[in-house]
Amino acid sequence: MLKKLRDEIMLRSTCYENLRVLSKTIGHRLSGSPQAEKAVQWGLKAMKEAGADRAWLQPVWVPRWVRGKESLKVKLPGKGGFETMRMLSLGNAVGSNGKTIEAPIVMVQNIDEFNALRNEQIVGKIVFFNYRFRQDLISPFEAYGDAIKYRGSTPTLVSARGGAAVIIRSLSSGMDDAPHTGMTRYADTVRKIPAVAIGNFGADKLEAACRKGTVTAQLKTSARMMDSVLSYNVIGELRGSTTPDEYIVVGGHLDSWDVGEGAQDDGAGCVQSIEVIRALKAAGMRPKRSVRAVLFMNEENGARGGRAYADSVRVRGEKHILAIESDAGGFSPRGVGLEMAADKKAKVRKWAPLFAPLNVYDFEHEHGGVDIDPLAKGGTALAGLSPDPQRYFDYHHTEQDVFEVVNHRELKLGAAVMASLVYLVSQYGL
Amino acid sequence: MLKKLRDEIMLRSTCYENLRVLSKTIGHRLSGSPQAEKAVQWGLKAMKEAGADRAWLQPVWVPRWVRGKESLKVKLPGKGGFETMRMLSLGNAVGSNGKTIEAPIVMVQNIDEFNALRNEQIVGKIVFFNYRFRQDLISPFEAYGDAIKYRGSTPTLVSARGGAAVIIRSLSSGMDDAPHTGMTRYADTVRKIPAVAIGNFGADKLEAACRKGTVTAQLKTSARMMDSVLSYNVIGELRGSTTPDEYIVVGGHLDSWDVGEGAQDDGAGCVQSIEVIRALKAAGMRPKRSVRAVLFMNEENGARGGRAYADSVRVRGEKHILAIESDAGGFSPRGVGLEMAADKKAKVRKWAPLFAPLNVYDFEHEHGGVDIDPLAKGGTALAGLSPDPQRYFDYHHTEQDVFEVVNHRELKLGAAVMASLVYLVSQYGL
Repeated sequence: MLKKLRDEIMLRSTCYENLRVLSKTIGHRLSGSPQAEKAVQWGLKAMKEAGADRAWLQPVWVPRWVRGKESLKVKLPGKGGFETMRMLSLGNAVGSNGKTIEAPIVMVQNIDEFNALRNEQIVGKIVFFNYRFRQDLISPFEAYGDAIKYRGSTPTLVSARGGAAVIIRSLSSGMDDAPHTGMTRYADTVRKIPAVAIGNFGADKLEAACRKGTVTAQLKTSARMMDSVLSYNVIGELRGSTTPDEYIVVGGHLDSWDVGEGAQDDGAGCVQSIEVIRALKAAGMRPKRSVRAVLFMNEENGARGGRAYADSVRVRGEKHILAIESDAGGFSPRGVGLEMAADKKAKVRKWAPLFAPLNVYDFEHEHGGVDIDPLAKGGTALAGLSPDPQRYFDYHHTEQDVFEVVNHRELKLGAAVMASLVYLVSQYGL
Repeated sequence: MLKKLRDEIMLRSTCYENLRVLSKTIGHRLSGSPQAEKAVQWGLKAMKEAGADRAWLQPVWVPRWVRGKESLKVKLPGKGGFETMRMLSLGNAVGSNGKTIEAPIVMVQNIDEFNALRNEQIVGKIVFFNYRFRQDLISPFEAYGDAIKYRGSTPTLVSARGGAAVIIRSLSSGMDDAPHTGMTRYADTVRKIPAVAIGNFGADKLEAACRKGTVTAQLKTSARMMDSVLSYNVIGELRGSTTPDEYIVVGGHLDSWDVGEGAQDDGAGCVQSIEVIRALKAAGMRPKRSVRAVLFMNEENGARGGRAYADSVRVRGEKHILAIESDAGGFSPRGVGLEMAADKKAKVRKWAPLFAPLNVYDFEHEHGGVDIDPLAKGGTALAGLSPDPQRYFDYHHTEQDVFEVVNHRELKLGAAVMASLVYLVSQYGL
């Protein structure tokens, strides 16, 4: 049966074509944007075309953050004028209110160095956190976890001590100049200040300049948070044949950052989830338990879609036995992360040999996904597709995350892994 | 020690920059071409810069095949004129001697269908083998093995029955129109006829047209085999500290097909092999046994470099205990193929846990490499780097095999796997 399912996907999948349409005709789709609304309509249509017994929209109020125009110019020691650097405001950051912030840059290599500065070195200055994404860590997700506080907490740290703005070296494994956006946060206790990311090459250049002498920056950004907007999760369902009131969720998130096409993050997870529905239906493999594909809204800058879905499950008392998310890119799958009770893990691991033909071997890691995480409180077992991680943080939250960097076989194999696990749990429970 | 070696590679490797130079300043480099000669000089220089104790060239006479101008035009049923299709002559194929072969196309789905044709259906015709690369096989190398007879043997089959030329659907996993070249062969008993490959999209179009009615083709190719040319394997050596007369070889092949940049096939294997020398030297990890990096010439259309190297080893009586080749692309490594006696396999497999931090787990497959294969007769144990295989046959032997489709972290991880195995064997033998 699993062979039949994976043949259906490898030979007749529509997921790659779906991803092309989502990436190329809609493109990036930050929560609350017109493109996100288009993506919702696209998702509903795709879910029906995949053969869902029913498909519907679930309302979610989402923040609407707008980048607007922005620029960073720097005057390097020994150079005459200001030159432009590639940059992106961090997501949810404030702008400079139409003004240009002109100030010297203070470079620190890490937060410890920042903490060791005297206040007069910070007040009115733009602080450049030159912390490097750790290329020596074999797991880029570990390197991301290591570096993420530079994106999330430095605006608060700098503002608290009177700094004017923050520049960070991007959370990037890329050997290039692409800036990576992504969500930052401000503590309630501080004035919000602008915060931007520059690419690795730009950061190398700025680092060298700061070592030579004083660098002055001109930063102008118009990022701002607007009123919340009504948006939607997209849900498609195959009714279970014998136990329809038990549910298995397979999902990804439909929103993306406002650059590139959100192809790996997370168009891939969306089209793979839709593919699970299509392949089960096309292969005539009606599941015993109900299967829902969910395209969650607002993972990137609020995670409200995941909470709205879990709230609805709780209110309706729907029994959700497993949720699996694909939000680590459409790369060649290597495993499935498991975030569930030990006996359930043991049951899934007994199935590991069934995944060996897909070159999937790793069921040892503990992870699920941001969108499905709120379901855990209700007792749902969580799983996360684990594709090969090496390329993800080259593209993540950049202009480079486009359809062309997704390989069709890798994408389909990921869908086959998800479909196989969903089918096994739908037939044998957990 | 292995951690030290892999940190050296992940943080300070020159292999990605070496690949950039090879791909972008030299580009494709078919045996006997001026570019291949440039690549030899580049390789020698790179080997010295990597810190080899000595580096030298080993003469190899290679065939020199030249593509020249070529075109394929088809007149589809119901269409007025001829239209051009993307195509590439198969490597080592003959041309049409300045003439245009104009003939109807006879389509068959596979060799069985061809064998069932009557002679009058073949004589004077151009036979189109529409055999599809099997996307349902999870290993694209298995699909390649399944399809390779269509590239290698159809010119002989068709010529033997009086056909004028051969068109094949490319051995390609790509969802695109790129034609894939690669070596074909002729039996001594037949007249050599032209043989070309078309891309998957072109083949889909031609298939649909052939089902509708008669398709006439105009094929003009000027491919030809020239006189052999003197070329070289490039060899760099680190002398062993305690047992210098035992050798470990790490290699890739320096030649490529005459399209694209030969980045994955096999620039990657070359720069990884050089990196093994550089990293051992830079990390101060002098091996007990001697380590040689060998950039073999002429893997693609003759495999003479591998034979020349093995001949030299035999003549000199050099004891070669292991040879490992990287010729499956610079993708994220998953394992190492082992082609050696059972007790040696067992010894390598005991080291498997040392490779787990590199996400390398598969030591079960039996494969080495085309270039090192001739060493097996002399008792050398063979190994082959096994990277993730899903993307390889999208790029293989096409215009698309360029530097940009190689990821720097994946490339370095492959080098780290090779360096680790080489170091272990250099210290503990096999």
